[in-house]
Amino acid sequence: MQQRALGLKRTGKTIGLVPTMGFLHEGHLSLMRLARERCDVLVVSIYVNPAQFAPTEDLDAYPRDFGRDEELCNQEGVDLLFYPATMYADDASTWIDEKALSEGLCGAAREGHFQGVCTVVAKLFNLVLPDLAVFGEKDAQQLRIIERMVRDLNFPVEIVRGPILREPDGLAMSSRNKYLSAQQREEALCLRRSLDGVQKLYGEGERSVAVLRRKMLDCIEPVEGAEVDYIEFVDDGSLVAMDEVRGDVLVALAVKIGSTRLIDNEVLHA
Amino acid sequence: MQQRALGLKRTGKTIGLVPTMGFLHEGHLSLMRLARERCDVLVVSIYVNPAQFAPTEDLDAYPRDFGRDEELCNQEGVDLLFYPATMYADDASTWIDEKALSEGLCGAAREGHFQGVCTVVAKLFNLVLPDLAVFGEKDAQQLRIIERMVRDLNFPVEIVRGPILREPDGLAMSSRNKYLSAQQREEALCLRRSLDGVQKLYGEGERSVAVLRRKMLDCIEPVEGAEVDYIEFVDDGSLVAMDEVRGDVLVALAVKIGSTRLIDNEVLHA
Repeated sequence: MQQRALGLKRTGKTIGLVPTMGFLHEGHLSLMRLARERCDVLVVSIYVNPAQFAPTEDLDAYPRDFGRDEELCNQEGVDLLFYPATMYADDASTWIDEKALSEGLCGAAREGHFQGVCTVVAKLFNLVLPDLAVFGEKDAQQLRIIERMVRDLNFPVEIVRGPILREPDGLAMSSRNKYLSAQQREEALCLRRSLDGVQKLYGEGERSVAVLRRKMLDCIEPVEGAEVDYIEFVDDGSLVAMDEVRGDVLVALAVKIGSTRLIDNEVLHA
Repeated sequence: MQQRALGLKRTGKTIGLVPTMGFLHEGHLSLMRLARERCDVLVVSIYVNPAQFAPTEDLDAYPRDFGRDEELCNQEGVDLLFYPATMYADDASTWIDEKALSEGLCGAAREGHFQGVCTVVAKLFNLVLPDLAVFGEKDAQQLRIIERMVRDLNFPVEIVRGPILREPDGLAMSSRNKYLSAQQREEALCLRRSLDGVQKLYGEGERSVAVLRRKMLDCIEPVEGAEVDYIEFVDDGSLVAMDEVRGDVLVALAVKIGSTRLIDNEVLHA
């Protein structure tokens, strides 16, 4: 891949990258379309990155369907599909840690997760040499950590934010939605409902995080199969938790529906 | 710097980088000459990287002479001198750790040192976008860690090893030699003498690390102002310590002469 990328750069072509773990859905395709508009050569990577799964997580169960992914990429006019079998030497010993934005939210619950994310994204940047890379806003913390890494390590890559895509009923698209039974699929709507609830209260002038969080809990706790992992109100730049909404605030939540952990988020704009 | 580098890449020029902390000596110049032969555009960076100094170390005292450095670079046909005032945002939070080769030798004595080295070198790679970068063999552990980082993170950079340059009497060139008094300058020769001694014994067939190390200590301990920090015999690939010399073995030592810490090394080839 790297030789190919170097060759493209020498001919002055711009490269756009959409890194994915495959099992593509409309959300991924929207990221590809964003990239497609802004580069000469569109590269999509598909790699279920073991380094970002904890031993207890769903690495082996993570859904895969390469044939279908390939077909979707062709339909979207992807120029290069990069799907390495492995990306790590057996004795790999170099890791990238972001140590501020990674502390809370999913970082608190998923030890080592963002180290795995940062490391694999840096590797992809060095292999694909993109001018721009698109990351979805659904993984809000990941997006901000990648932006921070790019700034701190001076990667010559522009990070483009892709808006969350939702099913008609509001559920944020995710490869993990596949795990849900019909009943759980229904239960999963509580994430979106809780964000709608908080948005409404905020619009009415409520600024107390305790009150706003209570509103969200009221949407989720009554749902039989739902268990809140976290609901956080954090400064949109520093990801530091706050008691009172001031400035742009990221509201992020993770909820287990049965054994499937789903995330969603929204920014309350000042 | 990055915009300039991107412009050069677009015109198909190859870039060579020699990263330094300035106060250049003949050793640095030899690295520049190695790079000069192999690239279109030679970039030298001068940056005394705070992240690789521990709070107790000589960051403030580290010798600087930018005017002289600039003149030497001009004489060597350096195309671009990159001397940033600072390379870190106040809230920088992304760091690169190499976690195997960094454990022993200087890594054991200098906490956080190689994290600072890896991070600044990655930043320089991303800012200068070199095709090749030259590092001196005097910093043997650093060189191997950088090579490992390049492999693990897939940087599109060829690492070129520059041989140790020595003063006529054998002392390895180092900016820190400036700290030595005339008497200490004399005492400092014990490092080279100990390596000569071990090389001779090894040539005669000795393979016991205990015996070989004893020989080195015998060269250093009698020197009044010298205090051994470490003398290590490690596998040249993994940097794992060994009792018996097998395969290529890196002999590395750090010795304090007064308050100045000097390092030297040599590879015993199988």
